[in-house]
Amino acid sequence: MDSKVLRIGLIGAGRIGKLHGSNIQASVPGARVVRLAEPLLNGGHEAWAAQTGISKATKDPADIMNDKDIDAVFICSPTYTHADFIVQAARKGKHIFCEKPIHTDIQKIKEALAEVDKAGVKLQIGFVRRFDHNHKKVHDTVASGMLGKPHIVKITSRDPEGPPLDYIAGSGGIFMDMTIHDFDMARYLAGSEITEVAAYGAVNIDPAYKKYGDVDTAAVMLKFENGVIGLIDNSRAARYGYDQRTEVHCDKGCVQVANDLNDTSMISTAGGVVCEKPTWFFLERYNNAFIAEAAAFVDAVNNNKNPPVDGKDGLMSVYAAMAADKSLKENRLVKLSELVS
Amino acid sequence: MDSKVLRIGLIGAGRIGKLHGSNIQASVPGARVVRLAEPLLNGGHEAWAAQTGISKATKDPADIMNDKDIDAVFICSPTYTHADFIVQAARKGKHIFCEKPIHTDIQKIKEALAEVDKAGVKLQIGFVRRFDHNHKKVHDTVASGMLGKPHIVKITSRDPEGPPLDYIAGSGGIFMDMTIHDFDMARYLAGSEITEVAAYGAVNIDPAYKKYGDVDTAAVMLKFENGVIGLIDNSRAARYGYDQRTEVHCDKGCVQVANDLNDTSMISTAGGVVCEKPTWFFLERYNNAFIAEAAAFVDAVNNNKNPPVDGKDGLMSVYAAMAADKSLKENRLVKLSELVS
Amino acid sequence: MDSKVLRIGLIGAGRIGKLHGSNIQASVPGARVVRLAEPLLNGGHEAWAAQTGISKATKDPADIMNDKDIDAVFICSPTYTHADFIVQAARKGKHIFCEKPIHTDIQKIKEALAEVDKAGVKLQIGFVRRFDHNHKKVHDTVASGMLGKPHIVKITSRDPEGPPLDYIAGSGGIFMDMTIHDFDMARYLAGSEITEVAAYGAVNIDPAYKKYGDVDTAAVMLKFENGVIGLIDNSRAARYGYDQRTEVHCDKGCVQVANDLNDTSMISTAGGVVCEKPTWFFLERYNNAFIAEAAAFVDAVNNNKNPPVDGKDGLMSVYAAMAADKSLKENRLVKLSELVS
Amino acid sequence: MDSKVLRIGLIGAGRIGKLHGSNIQASVPGARVVRLAEPLLNGGHEAWAAQTGISKATKDPADIMNDKDIDAVFICSPTYTHADFIVQAARKGKHIFCEKPIHTDIQKIKEALAEVDKAGVKLQIGFVRRFDHNHKKVHDTVASGMLGKPHIVKITSRDPEGPPLDYIAGSGGIFMDMTIHDFDMARYLAGSEITEVAAYGAVNIDPAYKKYGDVDTAAVMLKFENGVIGLIDNSRAARYGYDQRTEVHCDKGCVQVANDLNDTSMISTAGGVVCEKPTWFFLERYNNAFIAEAAAFVDAVNNNKNPPVDGKDGLMSVYAAMAADKSLKENRLVKLSELVS
Repeated sequence: MDSKVLRIGLIGAGRIGKLHGSNIQASVPGARVVRLAEPLLNGGHEAWAAQTGISKATKDPADIMNDKDIDAVFICSPTYTHADFIVQAARKGKHIFCEKPIHTDIQKIKEALAEVDKAGVKLQIGFVRRFDHNHKKVHDTVASGMLGKPHIVKITSRDPEGPPLDYIAGSGGIFMDMTIHDFDMARYLAGSEITEVAAYGAVNIDPAYKKYGDVDTAAVMLKFENGVIGLIDNSRAARYGYDQRTEVHCDKGCVQVANDLNDTSMISTAGGVVCEKPTWFFLERYNNAFIAEAAAFVDAVNNNKNPPVDGKDGLMSVYAAMAADKSLKENRLVKLSELVS
Repeated sequence: MDSKVLRIGLIGAGRIGKLHGSNIQASVPGARVVRLAEPLLNGGHEAWAAQTGISKATKDPADIMNDKDIDAVFICSPTYTHADFIVQAARKGKHIFCEKPIHTDIQKIKEALAEVDKAGVKLQIGFVRRFDHNHKKVHDTVASGMLGKPHIVKITSRDPEGPPLDYIAGSGGIFMDMTIHDFDMARYLAGSEITEVAAYGAVNIDPAYKKYGDVDTAAVMLKFENGVIGLIDNSRAARYGYDQRTEVHCDKGCVQVANDLNDTSMISTAGGVVCEKPTWFFLERYNNAFIAEAAAFVDAVNNNKNPPVDGKDGLMSVYAAMAADKSLKENRLVKLSELVS
Repeated sequence: MDSKVLRIGLIGAGRIGKLHGSNIQASVPGARVVRLAEPLLNGGHEAWAAQTGISKATKDPADIMNDKDIDAVFICSPTYTHADFIVQAARKGKHIFCEKPIHTDIQKIKEALAEVDKAGVKLQIGFVRRFDHNHKKVHDTVASGMLGKPHIVKITSRDPEGPPLDYIAGSGGIFMDMTIHDFDMARYLAGSEITEVAAYGAVNIDPAYKKYGDVDTAAVMLKFENGVIGLIDNSRAARYGYDQRTEVHCDKGCVQVANDLNDTSMISTAGGVVCEKPTWFFLERYNNAFIAEAAAFVDAVNNNKNPPVDGKDGLMSVYAAMAADKSLKENRLVKLSELVS
Repeated sequence: MDSKVLRIGLIGAGRIGKLHGSNIQASVPGARVVRLAEPLLNGGHEAWAAQTGISKATKDPADIMNDKDIDAVFICSPTYTHADFIVQAARKGKHIFCEKPIHTDIQKIKEALAEVDKAGVKLQIGFVRRFDHNHKKVHDTVASGMLGKPHIVKITSRDPEGPPLDYIAGSGGIFMDMTIHDFDMARYLAGSEITEVAAYGAVNIDPAYKKYGDVDTAAVMLKFENGVIGLIDNSRAARYGYDQRTEVHCDKGCVQVANDLNDTSMISTAGGVVCEKPTWFFLERYNNAFIAEAAAFVDAVNNNKNPPVDGKDGLMSVYAAMAADKSLKENRLVKLSELVS
């Protein structure tokens, strides 16, 4: 194997783990998944690994940590395990790609980031939307300065359909589970840190959310250090597809992006004009973004660059989610300084 | 003159007064402006009146109030005079179309509405956007029930350029001057009353706004009685034109409208694809809506219907503006029940 | 009456005559319709005239020709009378606005144009689409030279529904009745004269067209003196509205326009995304263009300018229609030089 | 190697050969390229083959023909060699995917198709646009019958930039080289055979085309057996990207598709509204279509289905191109029956 190829150990073969594994093998030059660790390993996982060209599959993530031929890990296991795997990988000197969120406990996150710092390994957090061609265009336009200073950031983020209700029970709530992506997007687009949050929520879709103390419809208003005001709206069930639009209004004008559609057709009849729906969900919408995200990580490691989404990004989005949760529950504005220690 | 033609007295010949006057003469069958009262009456006003077929022009609004041949008044004078003219017209038994807002003082509004009730005359408030073909389509779609219950109402409302700074001094602040239209639109689209407001504001465009204790960029989050969450964003200077978009996300999907454009052109070159800008400002965007609004008033009077925008609509939008102002200044959520007495 | 106001005699109070009459009275400053002549004059016409502020109504067009207070005529009578009225009006020194086509007989057109020349009066032909904000933007973009030399002109022109079949009998065929607008538009956009025509036609909508030797679906390819190639497609029944799109591809890129829509709404559900249809027919789509057209004529007369659509434009479009008809019937390419004498 | 995997020999490692080779290895389950034959084989080809997982590379296509472990060939060599390779592969019992056109000589095409018939192997021609999500949607909508009988087929097909001039010399002319895709698309969308062609052409971009008796701008009008009329417009240099739009007008309405864009951004400033350009050229626009095309071939062979684009499709498009060429050169309408023997 070419010495320039990054050897990756994949932890977790659920939906997102398989996605990353397949993408790397097929579409990310300069990297190769060489081993899978999946605690619930079964024949299905093994067949998938074989077909994807992953030569070894094991139950124990320690097998990856202890494999000296592995340069980097992709942590795609359940959220509560992320921080621990970061610590283990960092101690073994392995570079780390970790799905979001790092953890829902700030102390755990900080400990993990401290180990990363100490080990001097690269850490990238899986905020995949930054790699979407549309959102990236909004970011790049604002960051270029061509529109002057940003004033307002708007994010619409609605899932096509809610997850199973038992998922809701352990999701950490809408802000930690779903809006966390939008908090990261808002920081990315505003180019500044969130200082205050106001959150509204409602149970409009399914009364079962109430049982879990959660909401299915939410809106968040954000204040940023640089004077930008942010607005986010979320729904667990948009019905028509994955509605993911962003917009930044600036001193000289506005940049906004619409959804990607299944096709560009327009069918006109006496009954009306019918166009296509947005792509269905994140696997369809962010398909290329997942590849770009993995490629960016591989590039950062192989060429010793800073990863484009780092540990601080992972931490700050969790703070924002906690503040939104507090705002909703206490029905008041919440400053991030109340939480940041 | 045909007895079925509503005879209108126009109070005020500023920009909006002239607009209504010209529209009625040219495009509203069933009505005729027969007299103008403009305290600052000059030769320009008189020439405009003659050309528009308004046969009498006077300085004193009392001339209109005392004219027994006048059936209805259009109050297009400065805001602080609206309530008094409503009272005078009501006492004379004249139907009333009044530009928004009724007044910035709740007590004055209530007194005016009480006189209207007592006199049994029709009163319509000039929330013209309800008559725009786009926003009306959003409303009608939601109201039809075809999308189920509404969940989220979003309003983008940005002026192309700010008013003169001396206007700002007396405007009552961004929420009373500009967002008041959006509060009415939000109520119209949500089909419910606002119960709570969270407002953020920033001076991003011109530091001079600070001098007046005002902001030039604002965002408001709303709670409605029926569980709808509202989001409004405002800017005093969008630069590219009048940005007026609305969107309601409902149980079965979403209805949204984009801006009207100057034309539908698309010019594609190696340098990019250039499309047209939104129509410049309210005179261009709401041209047909102003006609429809006046026609609706004339229809309500001539055919004894309830006006589509009534005194309560005028009052509730002022409450919302006051609550937003309080929220911004005190940096907290404000319930409307704090203000409604 | 102000001496600067152009006094107009209106000949014909059918649909198009009423349209022009109402537009001039309501929306064209500097002109006034003072007399109507309608051979089939009835009470309905008289009521319309009174309501529109046209003080005199007569059966005999000669009353207009002989009225020395009339400066200009609008010829809105049936096609076969156009040329004769042009001759009569020219001989009386009156300026002329004439609906298209001038006539279907080249000799009659030439005689009429000769009289206009001799009299030195203004003549404008009613190719209203040149005044549509969309098509005009295409023309102006090409004419500005910003895209370089034009290469390809494309016109889609489809009516929402066919006319009554008895209209078809006397229409002169699809090319003289319907495509004639597109021939004028093609000349307008290409900025050059048509030299050759290839026409295809089919009866796809209603077999009754065959009875009249006519077609309901057509396509025409055009060669222009300046090397531009033109493509036109027509349908008598688009069903979804009036489909009027133009496009010019040039050396540096392409300019194209889409239809105006009833509103900008987009309704997204699980069943699909529904947008609005184009405006229904020419009265809706070209409403403002009719006003602009009349205003341009009044401006040309009042300020002694060349009318923007002149007699040659009227003549050349008839040549093109005749050539297309010949091409379809003889199933061959037809050069305009075969017809132009 | 799994017996269900189709073993493919790739003939030609130019741009299109490499594209198919990479696609099959990465994205077409059920197939594997096992050998490359490239007469001009060099180190670059060999490196590409190794990297792509093609284990053998040779200069002589006969090595592929004689390899009993090879089930199918992809013919991606220069046009003039296609027919001979088809014959050779058919005689060896190998299934065949062949890039378009089969040949520019009708006799050679017929001989090749006869051999395919005799051998009973599958033959698919590389009209990749049929597999584009947009054009396919137009086809499927028409074919579903939901819009009734088709009336008009319109195809805009413009390359972003012309090929090198020495390519023009051997291209066979614009109709055989470029429009041939549109003839196939027109047949695909109309669901019928072309009976007559009228072609116009012009040298508007580069005078050098004249030297080769070729044109750089063209338009073609088509008659179909089922009464459909077709219109095609072509340009060698659109400048703004690859302009590939199709539209079918039917009895009950119209289905049309726009281009895919680089992203959905809209940047609004006082200077105008800028949107993104179409994807640059066929590699970007038809990236997924190339994969779908190869997958369809593999599916046809592995599951014994008829290939979706067959030898007759390859033949008829060549007839149409020849007829267009004749029409342009002889400046007359040309019936396909003049050519079909």
